[in-house]
Amino acid sequence: MSQRVKIKQLLSNEAVQYETTVKGWVRTFRSNRFIALNDGSTNNNLQIVVDFENMDPATLKRITTGAAISATGTIVPSLGSGQKVEMQAKNIEILGDSDPETYPLQPKKHSLEFLREIAHLRFRTATFGAVFRVRHTLAYAVHKFFNDKGFVYLHTPIVTASDAEGAGEMFRVTTLDPINPPLTDEGQVDFKEDFFGRATNLTVSGQLEGELGAMALSDIYTFGPTFRAENSNTARHLAEFWMIEPEMAFYDLEDNMNLAEEFIKFVVGYALEHNRDDIEFLAQRLVEEEKQKPQAERSEMGLVEKLEFVLHNQFERITYTQAIDILKNSKPNKNKKFQYPVNDWGTDLQSEHERYLVEKHFKKPVIITDYPAAIKSFYMKQNDDGNTVRAMDILFPGIGEIVGGSQREENYDKLVAKMEALNLPVEEMYWYLDTRRFGSAVHSGFGLGFERLILFVTGMTNIRDVIPFPRTPKNAEF
Amino acid sequence: MSQRVKIKQLLSNEAVQYETTVKGWVRTFRSNRFIALNDGSTNNNLQIVVDFENMDPATLKRITTGAAISATGTIVPSLGSGQKVEMQAKNIEILGDSDPETYPLQPKKHSLEFLREIAHLRFRTATFGAVFRVRHTLAYAVHKFFNDKGFVYLHTPIVTASDAEGAGEMFRVTTLDPINPPLTDEGQVDFKEDFFGRATNLTVSGQLEGELGAMALSDIYTFGPTFRAENSNTARHLAEFWMIEPEMAFYDLEDNMNLAEEFIKFVVGYALEHNRDDIEFLAQRLVEEEKQKPQAERSEMGLVEKLEFVLHNQFERITYTQAIDILKNSKPNKNKKFQYPVNDWGTDLQSEHERYLVEKHFKKPVIITDYPAAIKSFYMKQNDDGNTVRAMDILFPGIGEIVGGSQREENYDKLVAKMEALNLPVEEMYWYLDTRRFGSAVHSGFGLGFERLILFVTGMTNIRDVIPFPRTPKNAEF
Repeated sequence: MSQRVKIKQLLSNEAVQYETTVKGWVRTFRSNRFIALNDGSTNNNLQIVVDFENMDPATLKRITTGAAISATGTIVPSLGSGQKVEMQAKNIEILGDSDPETYPLQPKKHSLEFLREIAHLRFRTATFGAVFRVRHTLAYAVHKFFNDKGFVYLHTPIVTASDAEGAGEMFRVTTLDPINPPLTDEGQVDFKEDFFGRATNLTVSGQLEGELGAMALSDIYTFGPTFRAENSNTARHLAEFWMIEPEMAFYDLEDNMNLAEEFIKFVVGYALEHNRDDIEFLAQRLVEEEKQKPQAERSEMGLVEKLEFVLHNQFERITYTQAIDILKNSKPNKNKKFQYPVNDWGTDLQSEHERYLVEKHFKKPVIITDYPAAIKSFYMKQNDDGNTVRAMDILFPGIGEIVGGSQREENYDKLVAKMEALNLPVEEMYWYLDTRRFGSAVHSGFGLGFERLILFVTGMTNIRDVIPFPRTPKNAEF
Repeated sequence: MSQRVKIKQLLSNEAVQYETTVKGWVRTFRSNRFIALNDGSTNNNLQIVVDFENMDPATLKRITTGAAISATGTIVPSLGSGQKVEMQAKNIEILGDSDPETYPLQPKKHSLEFLREIAHLRFRTATFGAVFRVRHTLAYAVHKFFNDKGFVYLHTPIVTASDAEGAGEMFRVTTLDPINPPLTDEGQVDFKEDFFGRATNLTVSGQLEGELGAMALSDIYTFGPTFRAENSNTARHLAEFWMIEPEMAFYDLEDNMNLAEEFIKFVVGYALEHNRDDIEFLAQRLVEEEKQKPQAERSEMGLVEKLEFVLHNQFERITYTQAIDILKNSKPNKNKKFQYPVNDWGTDLQSEHERYLVEKHFKKPVIITDYPAAIKSFYMKQNDDGNTVRAMDILFPGIGEIVGGSQREENYDKLVAKMEALNLPVEEMYWYLDTRRFGSAVHSGFGLGFERLILFVTGMTNIRDVIPFPRTPKNAEF
């Protein structure tokens, strides 16, 4: 590789009057003279000034939007480009042409919907370059946060025979003949003949296996893909998404909340520190986008302001019971503005209720704890009141639930009784129960949907725009 | 959480005469007096000295192998424990009992086969604690290496409609009724009715999608699960394993080799630096294990020595043609000791050949380049000779192929011609070809099987022992 330098490095350096080479893709070419070159290392383009009068006209013609070029020249101070430096080109080599008649990305505003259809090329736009660099930084911050605290990154299985949540629709994983599967004497599909010798599916959560790790290594986290075969075609749901699930031995619910809050603040702060340019670009994009909306629907805060607000304010912590009281006595409830009126303790919160609490009442992130046992999962620690469990959900403005977690039930007898009451397969799950039979201890954990975090940090509004190749009902393109 | 301190932190500190609390699992309890406590933060146990004459006998009886306890006491200098400090217990609380009659992990040597059957508990052994801490550190080092170089971590899709290698047996992902799937008029399964509206499977590689990212962001890497539905019940194969696949725009084959070598050295060095205790423990384990073997089959180097050898020696680089020459003229070939005699240029290398080159001839890691086109994948850059492609495989002692990579064919016409010759679906893969239609450029990448790297660094010999819950034919337990 000739001494190519990345544009991010070049622009972060005020040195001038040296010769270097850059390689990247042409964003625009103005007046036969000014190339805006991007190599994906930063949202900022390098301006390259071409001496068109002394250049081969055939080459000049091939400098088109989307073309890959190598440019060698002298770095000089820049007055007009918005950057401190620019390149005076000595030599331009066309690495790969881009026919302007057929290249789908032209130097104009394309809709996010259109770009979703050419997701293989959207990385080349300013918006998606920024989104995927921020996604990277958030992922790195996740690993750094847990590594620095001595957590062990545990790769829990993707193909599994267990259904962690006792809920979620699942995808079947199979190598059986799709049209003539082997059958048992009773006429059922004989999964004993399948690859794994049993019916298997794609995991909906690594939590249960994560707990096994925590009950030996103290602190673990997962960060991997999870799957829901739900037919939800919304801007908030994906069939395949990435989750982060820490599990900690000897943590009670309060330790759990403290960790979750510290974690979110760390990763948001890390992105703001390391991808400021990208986030400021996305903030500006959001302002432009919201100009289409009526004043009342626009965000009260800019994107950067919103992220800094989260960093510098404690999350509100209330119990489910307190939340119900607030909602019952709220204006929208009294004025019958909620689609689901809040009357009784025990019902699940709808997103209109969560939004009211976060966006109107507290105007900050809220952690709700101690939910009714009946609306939460079997593995959550039962409170002494017999009615509630030591659950916690973290609600974020514009996003809704971003974290769901709990202290786990560590008492073997209580856990078995609960599983039996719910008709869960106690015998099959002997491995989960063994952690309560042998050396059980208080422990806790939570799950954070990575894409929802990215939505929050980038200000994007459709979850399909923050994962490279979204998987949704009737769509597995690329 | 009371001021619990982790044992790793406590032992790394020479301070004494202060009171603190530790929590963990009892490894052994000797003479009614000495508890060896482990909390998973380190391979080393903390010795806790119990004043049994002044302790409640009922509690004393419950200090058994596997029990979870909380111990509070004074940290004092230690003479006998092999550590600098130990704890004089003031108070021991039993958090969770472990019945010695039924707890499967007793303080004696268990076989790796037995421990595989209780994979939910094996994290609690010294060997697997070390293996999974090393696995964590290697994963972290992977992210750190690429992040520090400005690579973007790209989450390529797990569920996909494409088969990257044009080879590999795949798992089907479906929500269709397994026994009565919808049929087309021709009597075939109607995958249009399936969740994604087409037949989908689990990815065998993220490379093709990774290239899309690289052709916009310059440098990307994937690190995620990949799947092979091969019925291989060997110590080197898993149905579900993790792969690392970097793709770099503007890198040629030599840049690619340089990066791969630097990468492997970085992560191995990082593990040696950060998990020295674990690796030294595993080295000792290997010595013990190899005592069972005849002298001739034992490793020539100890584990630590072997890792340092890799760090400090350049990998040998030879072409496939040179490799064939060496093998043809080798003693085992002349003496007909190879199961597959080496006669002709063009045949694929078997693992006996790879082992000979790495372990006998060069005695160091070897990179073999420029393989015959006929035995490599369609996307590899064709050399001008018309016979070979710019592939590179890195072979490691005891492991075989640890990295496979290549410069990618960036020429649209050559790539299409190759795909047509191999009957690959050119139209369906328009998205892959578009990177060659618009702004194509020289680019390269490689894949590294994460578990093979872990085998190398831990000295473990069965791949099922370096992933938490292995998935193999007829096995998807836990």
